[in-house]
Amino acid sequence: MEEQLSLSVTDNPHLTFSKEYLVVAQNASGRNLNVPVYRFKGHAPGPKVYVQSSIHGAEVQGNVVIYQLIQALKTARLKGEIILVPNCNPVGSNQKSGEYTLGRFDPVNGQNWNRAYHYDAQLIQRFIDKVKPDEILAEIKAEFRAHIKSGIDEVLSRTWGVGLAQQLNLKLQRFAFDADIVLDLHNGPVSCRHIYVPEYARESAQYFNIPNVILIPNVFAGALDEATFCPWWQLKDALSEKYPKRDWDFGIEAFTVEMGSQEVIEFTSGAYDAKGILAYLTYKNCFPKDSFLPVEITRYAVMLKDYKIMYAPTGGIVEYLAQPGVFAKKNSVMARVLNVDELENERAVSEIKAPCDLIPILHFPSASVLGGTQLYKCFTEFFEL
Amino acid sequence: MEEQLSLSVTDNPHLTFSKEYLVVAQNASGRNLNVPVYRFKGHAPGPKVYVQSSIHGAEVQGNVVIYQLIQALKTARLKGEIILVPNCNPVGSNQKSGEYTLGRFDPVNGQNWNRAYHYDAQLIQRFIDKVKPDEILAEIKAEFRAHIKSGIDEVLSRTWGVGLAQQLNLKLQRFAFDADIVLDLHNGPVSCRHIYVPEYARESAQYFNIPNVILIPNVFAGALDEATFCPWWQLKDALSEKYPKRDWDFGIEAFTVEMGSQEVIEFTSGAYDAKGILAYLTYKNCFPKDSFLPVEITRYAVMLKDYKIMYAPTGGIVEYLAQPGVFAKKNSVMARVLNVDELENERAVSEIKAPCDLIPILHFPSASVLGGTQLYKCFTEFFEL
Amino acid sequence: MEEQLSLSVTDNPHLTFSKEYLVVAQNASGRNLNVPVYRFKGHAPGPKVYVQSSIHGAEVQGNVVIYQLIQALKTARLKGEIILVPNCNPVGSNQKSGEYTLGRFDPVNGQNWNRAYHYDAQLIQRFIDKVKPDEILAEIKAEFRAHIKSGIDEVLSRTWGVGLAQQLNLKLQRFAFDADIVLDLHNGPVSCRHIYVPEYARESAQYFNIPNVILIPNVFAGALDEATFCPWWQLKDALSEKYPKRDWDFGIEAFTVEMGSQEVIEFTSGAYDAKGILAYLTYKNCFPKDSFLPVEITRYAVMLKDYKIMYAPTGGIVEYLAQPGVFAKKNSVMARVLNVDELENERAVSEIKAPCDLIPILHFPSASVLGGTQLYKCFTEFFEL
Amino acid sequence: MEEQLSLSVTDNPHLTFSKEYLVVAQNASGRNLNVPVYRFKGHAPGPKVYVQSSIHGAEVQGNVVIYQLIQALKTARLKGEIILVPNCNPVGSNQKSGEYTLGRFDPVNGQNWNRAYHYDAQLIQRFIDKVKPDEILAEIKAEFRAHIKSGIDEVLSRTWGVGLAQQLNLKLQRFAFDADIVLDLHNGPVSCRHIYVPEYARESAQYFNIPNVILIPNVFAGALDEATFCPWWQLKDALSEKYPKRDWDFGIEAFTVEMGSQEVIEFTSGAYDAKGILAYLTYKNCFPKDSFLPVEITRYAVMLKDYKIMYAPTGGIVEYLAQPGVFAKKNSVMARVLNVDELENERAVSEIKAPCDLIPILHFPSASVLGGTQLYKCFTEFFEL
Repeated sequence: MEEQLSLSVTDNPHLTFSKEYLVVAQNASGRNLNVPVYRFKGHAPGPKVYVQSSIHGAEVQGNVVIYQLIQALKTARLKGEIILVPNCNPVGSNQKSGEYTLGRFDPVNGQNWNRAYHYDAQLIQRFIDKVKPDEILAEIKAEFRAHIKSGIDEVLSRTWGVGLAQQLNLKLQRFAFDADIVLDLHNGPVSCRHIYVPEYARESAQYFNIPNVILIPNVFAGALDEATFCPWWQLKDALSEKYPKRDWDFGIEAFTVEMGSQEVIEFTSGAYDAKGILAYLTYKNCFPKDSFLPVEITRYAVMLKDYKIMYAPTGGIVEYLAQPGVFAKKNSVMARVLNVDELENERAVSEIKAPCDLIPILHFPSASVLGGTQLYKCFTEFFEL
Repeated sequence: MEEQLSLSVTDNPHLTFSKEYLVVAQNASGRNLNVPVYRFKGHAPGPKVYVQSSIHGAEVQGNVVIYQLIQALKTARLKGEIILVPNCNPVGSNQKSGEYTLGRFDPVNGQNWNRAYHYDAQLIQRFIDKVKPDEILAEIKAEFRAHIKSGIDEVLSRTWGVGLAQQLNLKLQRFAFDADIVLDLHNGPVSCRHIYVPEYARESAQYFNIPNVILIPNVFAGALDEATFCPWWQLKDALSEKYPKRDWDFGIEAFTVEMGSQEVIEFTSGAYDAKGILAYLTYKNCFPKDSFLPVEITRYAVMLKDYKIMYAPTGGIVEYLAQPGVFAKKNSVMARVLNVDELENERAVSEIKAPCDLIPILHFPSASVLGGTQLYKCFTEFFEL
Repeated sequence: MEEQLSLSVTDNPHLTFSKEYLVVAQNASGRNLNVPVYRFKGHAPGPKVYVQSSIHGAEVQGNVVIYQLIQALKTARLKGEIILVPNCNPVGSNQKSGEYTLGRFDPVNGQNWNRAYHYDAQLIQRFIDKVKPDEILAEIKAEFRAHIKSGIDEVLSRTWGVGLAQQLNLKLQRFAFDADIVLDLHNGPVSCRHIYVPEYARESAQYFNIPNVILIPNVFAGALDEATFCPWWQLKDALSEKYPKRDWDFGIEAFTVEMGSQEVIEFTSGAYDAKGILAYLTYKNCFPKDSFLPVEITRYAVMLKDYKIMYAPTGGIVEYLAQPGVFAKKNSVMARVLNVDELENERAVSEIKAPCDLIPILHFPSASVLGGTQLYKCFTEFFEL
Repeated sequence: MEEQLSLSVTDNPHLTFSKEYLVVAQNASGRNLNVPVYRFKGHAPGPKVYVQSSIHGAEVQGNVVIYQLIQALKTARLKGEIILVPNCNPVGSNQKSGEYTLGRFDPVNGQNWNRAYHYDAQLIQRFIDKVKPDEILAEIKAEFRAHIKSGIDEVLSRTWGVGLAQQLNLKLQRFAFDADIVLDLHNGPVSCRHIYVPEYARESAQYFNIPNVILIPNVFAGALDEATFCPWWQLKDALSEKYPKRDWDFGIEAFTVEMGSQEVIEFTSGAYDAKGILAYLTYKNCFPKDSFLPVEITRYAVMLKDYKIMYAPTGGIVEYLAQPGVFAKKNSVMARVLNVDELENERAVSEIKAPCDLIPILHFPSASVLGGTQLYKCFTEFFEL
């Protein structure tokens, strides 16, 4: 994609480009912290897409993916609108501790930066109660968006204030909730590509260039993808039950896309992942048919409940043998733990074995672990998609 | 209490003392981390009491309170049993970052050290379903304890392992769940004395030397006090509904006791708080009547929902004017924020005012705050107990 | 001083005010980090003064002192020029780790933010070699400043780049080296007021409102005060030896002023310290005679070599009994250490005693210490100034 | 080497094995922290060797190298004595901050764990003054060791105490100073193999399996290798000047060996590096001739002054293109920096080029850098050894 570098996005006759800055937090010097918002408005109608990256500050590859998406947008025939928000967490991105970026949680209180988005089942229920069976879908969508966003605004304006992570999340969510398609770009610790997909959007998983798919149910646990699809899912289910004769498909999809390891960027990988996203967006009519096509790979899926965490049974120094993305048979050795107190005897090295057939998806990024550290996350009971 | 220093606990003819060490974690050197368990067994029957301190590593004053309790136990006529576990989190206590102790959460993943205790409503329901209406209370208690502890053991022995904070919490909870009375000793950041009391045990709040009382409902949010009383509360409510003619009082109480500010110890304050605990334990028949008496003070209480967090409306440098424990009128100035970019004009200093009449209980321990920092926690709608 | 709040600095007919921003670093989002520079230029001639605060990010009280200086400058008859740079380290000020500010060193590599100023004895020597015995003092000063600043510029423009702390320091030093008087405002951990004074400027220590004075020799250890006075001291000594008949007093003074404890601001204390600084500046002819006068207090001084660090002899939990600023007799108990493993016996509490008569100036801000932690810094062999 | 796992070191008829624990620090729980000391005493005479690893807590591969050395010692014909101290810094090894180990410096004060060893030129000079020209070399060595160690003991027993890093360093140095050969095993951030060699021991660099050699002069900067060879070098130089007719070679060598990247262990690489060390020790007569032989590789050397740090010219997100250990031509692109604020234009990506022909040895382990971060360390003006 890099051959397009000399072209400007403003040269693309199919879209209008604008850039603005969104204030999302204020630091201890009393200064506003803002994030760039890149907006591409196609001249033809189409879905609205929202993409953000680096809500976890050390997960930086998404910024490169956004860069590569922008390179493609210099010549692409965009339909609808794409909003790109790279490096969307200026607090987390700048929190160093030692050489690494301590970007997964607020250093003050441990709050995960991706767990404070807004979801209020009762707020949604109040909306459902008022929907009429013959309302036009587009109008319901517009009203639902306004309804949820006013709920977000209510939180943001509370007398007693709002916590930092929640503020950051809500300010981004206000943007994202206007979109039909939301992509939240992440990385794992030492990780292969994987993607979280709501069970109903399983079909869409075929278009990303990502071999490992986690299918998640309609349960809100605080993240942006859930904060996007759970309300619409709840709305659809309730209306379908209430008015079963009508098709209540709002066409909203949201994904958490994990594109490899944190603390690293690679421009080539970024181009590959951007192409996958563009293939998915082509499938969703953001570009003319066949503008971008997915790669042909085997995709494995797992239900969220079968995506298992393996905790360190003991503290020590670990060599990770099982490689992310590579199938491991039951009882194969996944890791070896060195015990510095027993180097001269047979307790020097202990082995950690796969408790069942599995695909390790990611592992802890440090050799030094306490007992109870998340060593691996693994697909078990997986199946071909 | 310090005059008893020369006496040994083993000189007390009313009790038997023993000390053991409980392994609760394993560090990155592969070494076991243990905590001391001080056990005082009275020769007369009475309740079983469990007291721990410093599950949050920087909240160290509880260790002094335990020290002072032990001084008192050198001569006290103990009935029943008291188990004291000071410094119960050897990971959190030793996590420095700068000069302070980063002890509120696991530095690896942000997990609060006091939010991973075990509670499983379905496990409890299965027990309830099997209780017979005429079973002896003491037997139900013993069976319920065994039932819950086997649930804890099941978690601890899972094939895929258990996370560090959860391991630590469960190993302590196994001990605590045998007790009738559980005290979890904490401190606030910059804080006055306050105590969390389950609504049903409101009467007991009169005995501690603590002027500020938060009454909490039967909702589990992960802490030890809740993990102790919620199961019994659920059991009692279910049995009372099922068999309303019988009195289902199991006599279990649990409290989170917050005894001033973190990062500080004071032996004199510790003696004062130990006396309050001893007064409460006297009321609960752990000592002969009138062995220890509470101080006469006015106690204010608040329902948990009215215990409000005030978040910083802006980042900056803060002078905290409202003092913990001192009533503040609506619109009084609680804090001043300095803005280093506007020192020459009228935006240099902004004021934060009380949104209603309140008692500030604690405030943030650093002058430097980002927007959205927890500045104060306050009693609103409080009442005399 | 606060009654002047409604006045603007621009109303003061005796001076011209301007504000600018100096870029001192660039963060991981690729954004410039700047600091405000407040400049007050008196219409009458006088010395040039440079004041900065918070090079250590948690030492925030200096920002309040600068605020109070500005309040005074709204009406004061300034002679010469005062440059104020509050919150001069935007990296350190915003580095949280837990609730506190990790502002003493670069979190990436441990580099103290106040130890990378520039000093090059050979660079100075080259200048000395060229000074002629009959040159005008003001010209020598101007040339020396240009010489040193070109040395700083050379470092800043090196092909291989410059480290972050050094960049920050050098960019500030470029400003400071133009001044005749440099004040670097700091705080200790838990601390009373004290000031570092070069031995030759001992007389000036009488004017600050600070009772504890550390006299330091002509040795460069990396801090701003040394980086200011060491070059001039070296120049003076060399020229005095070379041309002993002439008086080579360049009138340069520099101080590190420590105004109490970190992590706290107080507007009232800030006004008190601002008055002391103004009294000193009055003595140095920055204001008309008697504009501001020092308070009458006893001042104690110590030679730097007698300013001793007391290290924790053991790990444990500490109650600090000796109060900063309060004389402690030899063998008096300064601190008590609680040992959580021995609470039932006579090893529960150990005492740390003063090894000689001393004034404790500051102590560690956390009760939890490892063996070898700096517990106290103390004046020994001190004398009345 | 792993085939020897079933053998025990005690089966080796050529040596006597013992293990002990050395207390090196005390944590905030008041508990001793110790390190294991593995001692192998050959039945034949030979040099005394001291090897330690992980003084920087995240640099863990040395522990595997020590493990592999022990495997070899199960059958090797050891002459002299080898002392192995793995994981020698129990504070640093257990300091997590986020998922990584913050092991390079004391988290309290930023003190590098490898910069507080003892060196006192005047102490050495006092010894030199007393050496007689005809003393037996072995006696001078023994007396010098006693002299230096009494200097270390004096520091450790100071009235005012000793700082934590210095305590840790001195307790290890006491052991190390008895040795003829000292190896301090380290890792770089993302790094290839390299070794620090005192200029006089250049010949020895041919025996390690390490292609990149840094030759260092007789300057003490705080590290263990310097603390070992600087005193002997100073002694030798002084005696050689004083009594030039005699050969004053004490046969002492010390090296800092950097064996790849931190935060990672690999058993295979560990065996390779262990073999290199054994080859060197064979050359030094710790094993019979040809017991272990070095690999044939080209070794490049650089004088310390030509081992350059490349600092980030700007903050941003970095792709590291130049690979550690791989020659880079002048003006070749070493890294690309992404600027998230300019993704749509030609300032999106900037390139960092090699300022001269060089071998990059290591680079920063995180993509996120502030301006002034150490991006690369590089050999310039290197030559074949």
